Amino acid sequence: MCESRVYLMENGSEVPIMENVIYIEPQDDKIFMSDLLGEQKIVEAKIKEVRLLEHKIILENRKDKK
Amino acid sequence: MCESRVYLMENGSEVPIMENVIYIEPQDDKIFMSDLLGEQKIVEAKIKEVRLLEHKIILENRKDKK
Repeated sequence: MCESRVYLMENGSEVPIMENVIYIEPQDDKIFMSDLLGEQKIVEAKIKEVRLLEHKIILENRKDKK
Repeated sequence: MCESRVYLMENGSEVPIMENVIYIEPQDDKIFMSDLLGEQKIVEAKIKEVRLLEHKIILENRKDKK
């Protein structure tokens, strides 16, 4: 299975914010995500990196983007 | 393994543009991606959806975004 853990960069650290994520959709300034059980979360962020082999999706705050 | 196929939306159709992608990184107005063999591609686009169970990452042209 390919579900991933989603992290949010905070002060240079990767803080895990959701497990078993199977779906991600950027929506304007936000990221919509949902997990295997259908639970949903929306965070104000943008995608920084998707590392599929590590099952890792890293988000960052929009204001942190250079 | 979790490598995915990357598609670009063109006139409402999903056109496959790269196979076995393991890494994606948005860079300004572009998307950088690389595959299992280390091959790299950069396209002018943004991420529309990431569907991990389907091994599918869908990009769209930035100008198509409403």
